[in-house]
Order: sequence, then structure tokens, then C-alpha cells
Amino acid sequence: MIETKIKELGLELPPPPPPGGIYHPVVIVDKMLYVSGQIPMRADGSLITGTVGKDMSVEEGQRAARQVGLTMLATIQAQLGNLDGIKRLVKALGMVNCEPGFGSQPLVINGFSELMVELLGEQNGKGARSAVGMILPRGVAVEIEAIFELK
Amino acid sequence: MIETKIKELGLELPPPPPPGGIYHPVVIVDKMLYVSGQIPMRADGSLITGTVGKDMSVEEGQRAARQVGLTMLATIQAQLGNLDGIKRLVKALGMVNCEPGFGSQPLVINGFSELMVELLGEQNGKGARSAVGMILPRGVAVEIEAIFELK
Amino acid sequence: MIETKIKELGLELPPPPPPGGIYHPVVIVDKMLYVSGQIPMRADGSLITGTVGKDMSVEEGQRAARQVGLTMLATIQAQLGNLDGIKRLVKALGMVNCEPGFGSQPLVINGFSELMVELLGEQNGKGARSAVGMILPRGVAVEIEAIFELK
Repeated sequence: MIETKIKELGLELPPPPPPGGIYHPVVIVDKMLYVSGQIPMRADGSLITGTVGKDMSVEEGQRAARQVGLTMLATIQAQLGNLDGIKRLVKALGMVNCEPGFGSQPLVINGFSELMVELLGEQNGKGARSAVGMILPRGVAVEIEAIFELK
Repeated sequence: MIETKIKELGLELPPPPPPGGIYHPVVIVDKMLYVSGQIPMRADGSLITGTVGKDMSVEEGQRAARQVGLTMLATIQAQLGNLDGIKRLVKALGMVNCEPGFGSQPLVINGFSELMVELLGEQNGKGARSAVGMILPRGVAVEIEAIFELK
Repeated sequence: MIETKIKELGLELPPPPPPGGIYHPVVIVDKMLYVSGQIPMRADGSLITGTVGKDMSVEEGQRAARQVGLTMLATIQAQLGNLDGIKRLVKALGMVNCEPGFGSQPLVINGFSELMVELLGEQNGKGARSAVGMILPRGVAVEIEAIFELK
């Protein structure tokens, strides 16, 4: 039970963010669940912004990526009612707000991946992954889109 | 009928662009249709180029994103013969040509998403989505790749 | 037989790179194989780094993209035991390390796509594709993630 583990770990899901544009937060086709790009929303609804490697450390970026994971679960929970249907993470595209010369995107996105392993386990919490740098909306530090497999 | 709605709205599909590299414009596996990254081609075959937020406004970027949508439909139509087989948009990766500090990528990509909703409806025209900034080929203002579900 | 063609062409797969973060190199769901973002690893285990269009030519970028293709096959081979199960390339996201103003990402990623066509044939070696610019980890010149269909 993912919700039980979230409580056991003392974690808190933020409020599910309203879509910041014209899209569905989640689309399901058969047993594949596609999640729109999620951003790091704190429990109070504020966003973690910054340019990693410039005005934010890699460690701060990792915490932002972990918060993206919590936001993603809040988004899925709001759509499905609960998180019981999730079987495994299939794929994630981890996007880090950074400038040319920054090279630690994989370390930053590990903050998301560690959370997924804590909650879904070593086998199902790891997916295929890319971790790269780009220019993110509203100055958020990290954005991640993902595909999950449902049970 | 998508083609009928295109006419009713007074829209015109551009010519389907020839692939700008070694790839298929469209690949179908079972009922999932993967569309290669599409760029904003005008009906006369010219491209909408620019850096949104620098030498192009957000509104101009939105029009470029809408034109990407028309180009994408032209591409699919050229491969399938018509657009009758499209059931819904599953997922889009919206890429905006911009520089660090720009944060309105979701507004720009809404130009694409609004067109999809006009043509496919509120439920099927919205997909999962990310809208992010990067450096695009040939200086085009917007590029979008997508997955559609077929009937 | 892909391995036979690799030998016939005088090519050599590099050692499969260990994951540079918390992820699976490959995830399979039914007949779809998702490959994590692959980077250009030489046969000696070193990486091809650089900013294409700045300190690297487009031709050097193409060679890096081709090397990403060999690395990707090494990664799949290490996971599946061999490459016999691959039916076709479905989709690739080609990411080029570059700075604003660079516009030849499709030419660079052709280095990967040419290799896939040489090994999988004209129909199955081409997939849907996007070729765009961003900031890549560890300064690698090219990174590519892909989806293959299995037999």
C-alpha cells in the first residue's frame, strides 16, 4: 500500500496542482498511465523555483525532485481516487532547470527516483529514465513526466 | 469528422512537410500512433521561426503552436489517407524555443492544445502534456511530438 | 541477425555503461522496450563530450550520435542476452548538447538513425523521432532515449 508507506515515512502529499494549461493531468490507455509534466509543489501550495547549479545546489535540486515525486503521486491519487492501482514506474523524463555547463542532472533526478524506490520497491520503483537540462516554466527547479503501468 | 470541422472553422492544413532527417513521420504500433516532432509550417511551406520571449511575443508563440497542430494533422493525414481513425490525443511534449528566464511555455503550447480541443473535443482533444523550453532546429519557435490513440 | 551485421560492418559495441543514477537501463512492458537515455561511450569506456556547433562540428556530433546507437545496443544486449528479439525502432528522442542559435540537431541525430537503418533495415530502423537541443549531463555531446518494439 503506497499510502501506508507514505504515512510510515512521515511524508505528506501536497494538494494536487490544478493543470497549468489545457491538458489532462493523467491519461490512461489500457494499463498504461501517462502523467503530465509535474512540478515541485510544497504542501502549502508554493513552488520550488531556481536554477540548479546557479542559485540552487545539487542537494536543493534533489529535494525539489523528491517533491516532484510527491506532487506526481498527489496528481495520480486525485485522478484515480487512490494509489492502489499502480504496479510500476515504466519511464520518466527528468528535466532540470539549469544553464550550459551544468552536468549533474542525474544526481538531481535521483531525488525523485529514491522516493519511487522507497514507495514502490527496488524493482518497480525504478523505471527507464533520462535526466537532462532545459528551461522550465515558471522558473521551477525540476519538472518530470512519467509513464506508469497499472495492475 | 475532423476534416469537416477543419473546414467549418475555416482552417487550412499546410502541405505535409517532408521528413527533415532519417525517420518516419508516423509510426503505428497496435492502436498507438507516434508522431515525430512537428514544426510550424505555414500553408505556403515556410516555417515560423523565432525565440519566444525575445524576438517573439507569447501570443505569436501561441499562433506558432497552433500551426504545429495543423502541420501535425497534415502529417497524419498524409500517412493514413484521412483523419477518421484518430480517437484521442494521449500525450504531447511541447517544446518552445526560448532562453533562460522565460517561463510561459504552458501558455505558448496552449495554442496547440486549443486547436486539438476544437477538433477532437474537450475530453479527447486534451492529452497528458509537458511544456518546456529548449533549443530547436532551424530556429523554429515551437516543436511538438505526440502520441495519439486510434479507434 | 543484428549481431552478425554489426560484425560484417566492422563495428564494435562498447561495454554496456553502468546506470549513472537510480534507474533501469531497460524496462519491458508486453512487447514494448523502453531504453533509458543513452550517452556516447567509446569502446574504451570513455565518453564523447562537447558542445556541438561550439567546440565540436556537426560531423563530430554525428559520430557521437552513431556511438550513442552502439551504446544503446550494448545496453539492450546486456539486458536481453542478445539482440534477436528486436523488431523495430518505434520512437527516439534525440538530444543534442548545444547553445542558443544552433539549428542542425536533425543532421546530428542522423548519425544514430543511419546506424539503425544499417542494422534494422529501411522500414524497421527508422522510427518516429524528434531532434532537439538542451543541456546534457556530464557534458556529453548527444543523448538519446528510445522505444523499440519486440518480436
